[in-house]
Amino acid sequence: MLESVLVWIEKNKHSWLDDLKQWLSFPSISADPARHPDISAAADWAMYYLRGAGLESSLVPTARCPCVLATTPDGLCPADAPHVLLYGHYDVQPPEPLEKWISPPFSPTVREGKIFARGASDDKGQVFCHLAALTAWKQIAHEIPVRLTVLLEGEEEIGSVNLPGVIRSHADQLKNAHVVIISDSSQFAPGVPAITCGLRGLIYYLVNLQGTKEDLHSGVYGGAVANPANALAQMLGGLHDARGRVTIPGFYDDVLEVDPELRRQWAALPFDEAQFAESLGVEKLYGEYGYSALQRRWCRPTLDINGLTSGYQGPGAKTVLPCLASAKVSMRLVPNQDPQKIAIAFEEYLRQLKPPGIKLGLQQLGASPAALTPIDSPAVAAAAEAVREGFLADPVFVREGGSIPVVTWFKELLGLDSVLLGFGLPDDNLHAPNEKLDLDCFYNGIRTAAALYDLLAKRLK
Amino acid sequence: MLESVLVWIEKNKHSWLDDLKQWLSFPSISADPARHPDISAAADWAMYYLRGAGLESSLVPTARCPCVLATTPDGLCPADAPHVLLYGHYDVQPPEPLEKWISPPFSPTVREGKIFARGASDDKGQVFCHLAALTAWKQIAHEIPVRLTVLLEGEEEIGSVNLPGVIRSHADQLKNAHVVIISDSSQFAPGVPAITCGLRGLIYYLVNLQGTKEDLHSGVYGGAVANPANALAQMLGGLHDARGRVTIPGFYDDVLEVDPELRRQWAALPFDEAQFAESLGVEKLYGEYGYSALQRRWCRPTLDINGLTSGYQGPGAKTVLPCLASAKVSMRLVPNQDPQKIAIAFEEYLRQLKPPGIKLGLQQLGASPAALTPIDSPAVAAAAEAVREGFLADPVFVREGGSIPVVTWFKELLGLDSVLLGFGLPDDNLHAPNEKLDLDCFYNGIRTAAALYDLLAKRLK
Repeated sequence: MLESVLVWIEKNKHSWLDDLKQWLSFPSISADPARHPDISAAADWAMYYLRGAGLESSLVPTARCPCVLATTPDGLCPADAPHVLLYGHYDVQPPEPLEKWISPPFSPTVREGKIFARGASDDKGQVFCHLAALTAWKQIAHEIPVRLTVLLEGEEEIGSVNLPGVIRSHADQLKNAHVVIISDSSQFAPGVPAITCGLRGLIYYLVNLQGTKEDLHSGVYGGAVANPANALAQMLGGLHDARGRVTIPGFYDDVLEVDPELRRQWAALPFDEAQFAESLGVEKLYGEYGYSALQRRWCRPTLDINGLTSGYQGPGAKTVLPCLASAKVSMRLVPNQDPQKIAIAFEEYLRQLKPPGIKLGLQQLGASPAALTPIDSPAVAAAAEAVREGFLADPVFVREGGSIPVVTWFKELLGLDSVLLGFGLPDDNLHAPNEKLDLDCFYNGIRTAAALYDLLAKRLK
Repeated sequence: MLESVLVWIEKNKHSWLDDLKQWLSFPSISADPARHPDISAAADWAMYYLRGAGLESSLVPTARCPCVLATTPDGLCPADAPHVLLYGHYDVQPPEPLEKWISPPFSPTVREGKIFARGASDDKGQVFCHLAALTAWKQIAHEIPVRLTVLLEGEEEIGSVNLPGVIRSHADQLKNAHVVIISDSSQFAPGVPAITCGLRGLIYYLVNLQGTKEDLHSGVYGGAVANPANALAQMLGGLHDARGRVTIPGFYDDVLEVDPELRRQWAALPFDEAQFAESLGVEKLYGEYGYSALQRRWCRPTLDINGLTSGYQGPGAKTVLPCLASAKVSMRLVPNQDPQKIAIAFEEYLRQLKPPGIKLGLQQLGASPAALTPIDSPAVAAAAEAVREGFLADPVFVREGGSIPVVTWFKELLGLDSVLLGFGLPDDNLHAPNEKLDLDCFYNGIRTAAALYDLLAKRLK
C-alpha cells in the first residue's frame, strides 16, 4: 500500500507545492501582536487541511496564539494501531531586515529548485511534509496506518509559553502515545539525512557576590576589603583546568562514554573543524582535551559563563571598588547526569572557592536533564528506515547540543521520548533573510513521512 | 612675631566665623551650569578677600569656572623668602538630598560647636583657615613670611578638567615654588592631626576579549569554541594567589618596605579593623596576607577589577555563548614602582594566560606614579611643627590610598611635591547631607596656617 501512496505523492508534486505556498503566505509572526489575525488564519488553514486528511481537528485557544489539535477518528486507523504524537509549529520568526530578501518573505517564490519564504523550513515546510503524507494515505488507502494526534503550536518562536498548559490540560489524550515525532531540525549535510536522538540538558544559575554595602573608591579602600569582582573571577576562573575540563568534584562521575560505533560514525561525517572555526570567526576551536568538536557539542558536558556584570561598564576609567558582582553560569548536561546532583556539587564547590569577606547568593534559573532516545528503539529504527525510503540514503544518528524545551516537556509532563527527524538543510537561513527549503528535501520529506507512519505501525506493534 | 599674630587670631574668632559664613552662603555648585553666577560670586569673594590680605589677586577665566590666582607683591614678603604654592578649591558638591539637611546647606548654622553648610569642610572651610592666617599676618606684621602664590579652582568636584591648562599657562610663575600646600583632606581622628605625605599611583586598563564573531547559542556551540567570559574569569582569576598577592611576575620587585618606625606609628593609631569592617558592611576585611588593613591601603600595591561586562545581564536565563567579554582593571602603585614597567609586565602576563581561540585587546586608560614627600623634608618638618603649634598635638604621617589628580599634575607639570595638611575630621559628611566643620578644628586650622608660613620661611631657606 505504501508503494501506491508514494506513487500518488509523486504524481501530485505540483499541488503539494501550491498548498504549501498558500500556508506560507500567512505572515504568522507570533512576536507581533498586530499579526494576530494572520496567526488565526494560519492556524485555521492547518485545521482545515487536517480535516481534509480525515482527522478530527480543532483549535485549542490559549492566552495568545491557539494550538491546532487533531486526532484520527475511529475508523481512520486500524483499531489496534499504535498511537503516535506529531508536534510542530505554524508560527514564524519576524522577517526583518526586509531589504535583504530577494523575494518578499510572504510571497513564496521558487528559484533554482528551492522555495523561498519565511517559514519554508522553520517549520511550516517541514510540518507540511507530514500533512501531505497524511492526505496521501487518506486518499489512497482510506486510512492512516497509526493512531495519530497532531499538535501544532503558534508560539514556538516566542518561547512556547502556553504550550505546557495545553499539554497538561490534554495529558489524558496525549500521554498514551508511544513516541513523539518532531520535524523541526535539519539534515546533517546535503545527502546526509539525520535523526537526532539525544539532546543535552541544562542547569542554569545566577551567581551573586556581595562585598561591602556600597561601592567604594578603589584608591582609598583597595586592598583593605575583598572585591567581589576579583572574587568572581577567581571563583569562576577556577571551574576549568588547563585541559578544559570542569573541576567541580564529581562533575564527570555519571557521564557515559559514547558507543564506539557511534563515535566512528560521527568521525566519518563531513565536518571540517578548520572550516567550522573559520565560519565562527575564530582562529581555532577550543574545548575539553581529547574530544572532537562534534563530541564536545553532542555528548560532553560543559560549563559556560553566559553573562558577567560588575562595577563600572561605561566608557573611560572609573576607580570604583564594586560592592556587587554577578554572573549567569550554565552547565550543559549529558544523558545519565542528574541536574540536581550537579547543582549540589556546583553550589558546594563555589562555597569552597569563595574568599572571606564576600557573601555568596545562588539562584537556580532552570534545570532539565539530557534527553536520549535509544538508537535501537523501535521508533528510531522506523524513522531510519523511513529516511532510507524517502531520501534514498542512510541517516546518521546525531545529537543536539542544546535542550529543546518541547522535548523536555513531553518527557517531563507525559513521559514521552521524541524522535527528531529533520527534512531541511543547515543552510536554510532559519531566522534570517531568504529562508528556503530545497524542493528535493521537500518531496523527500513527504515520502519519508508517508513511509514513517507505515513503519511506525509495524515497529511499534 | 608669630605670637602676636596668634593672639590677634584668637581675638578675632567671631569675625573669622562671620567671614566664613559669608563665603559658605554662595551655592557654588560646579556641577550645575545654572549656578554659574554663584560660582562667579564665590570666586570674586575669595579674590577680594585675598586683596584684603595684601595679595595681588585676579580671576583666570577657563571654559567653565574661573580660577582665583593671587601672589604676594614685592614688599609684602621678605625679598629672599622661599616661594610656596597654596592650592584649594571654592566649588562644592551638589547638596541633594535636601530633605536630609537639618539646616539649609547654604545658610551656614552653628550647632554644638560645629558649623554646618555645604563646603564647610570640603573645601571652603579649610581654604579659609589659610585666608584668615594671611589676613592676620598682613594686619599684625605688615608682611607675609613667604613668597606665596594662591591658586583656587572652581572645578575640583567635577574633575578639574580645566586645571591642567591653567597650570600649564602659568607654569613660569608657579614652577619655581618650593612646595605645594593643600588643605583638602582630614585629620586621622579627633585629637590625631595628620600630614599626608604619600599617595598611591595608578595604572588603569580596559581588557577586551573576543571569541567568535557573534554571540552563539550556548547549547548548540558550548564546548566547541573558547568562551571569552570563561577566559576572562580564568585570566583575571589567575592574577592573585591564595594569600591575596598579585601574581604578575615582577609586580613587587620595586616595592619599598616602609620604614619600621612609621609602621610602628601606624600600628599605634586609633584604628579598629573590626569596627572598620562593620562600617563597610562586611564580616571581615580581606587582602594581602601579612599586612594590616592600613598598610594595605597606604603602602601596598593592589590589583582590582573595577568593572566586568559580558553576555546577557538582564533578568532570567539566556543561553548565550558571548562573543565578547571585557573588564576594567586597575592597579594601585606605591612609591618606586614604575607604572610603565608594571604595565608591560601586566600585558605580557595576560598574553601568557590567554587560552587559544581568543583575541586579546588591551587599552591603557590612565597611568600615574605614586607620590611621596619625604617625612624628613623641610616642608614636612615645617608642617609638623605648625600642627603642634596649632593643634597642640603631634601629627601622624599618613598616606592616602588613592591618587589625587592635582598632586599628580603639580608633580608632572611643575616637578613640585605636595604636603597635604587636613584640618577637618573623618566624620565631616563630605559629599553628604549635613556637611560640617568643628569650630575647634577651624580655629586650630587658622593657627596652624599662621604658624606654617612662619615655619616654612625658616625651614625652606
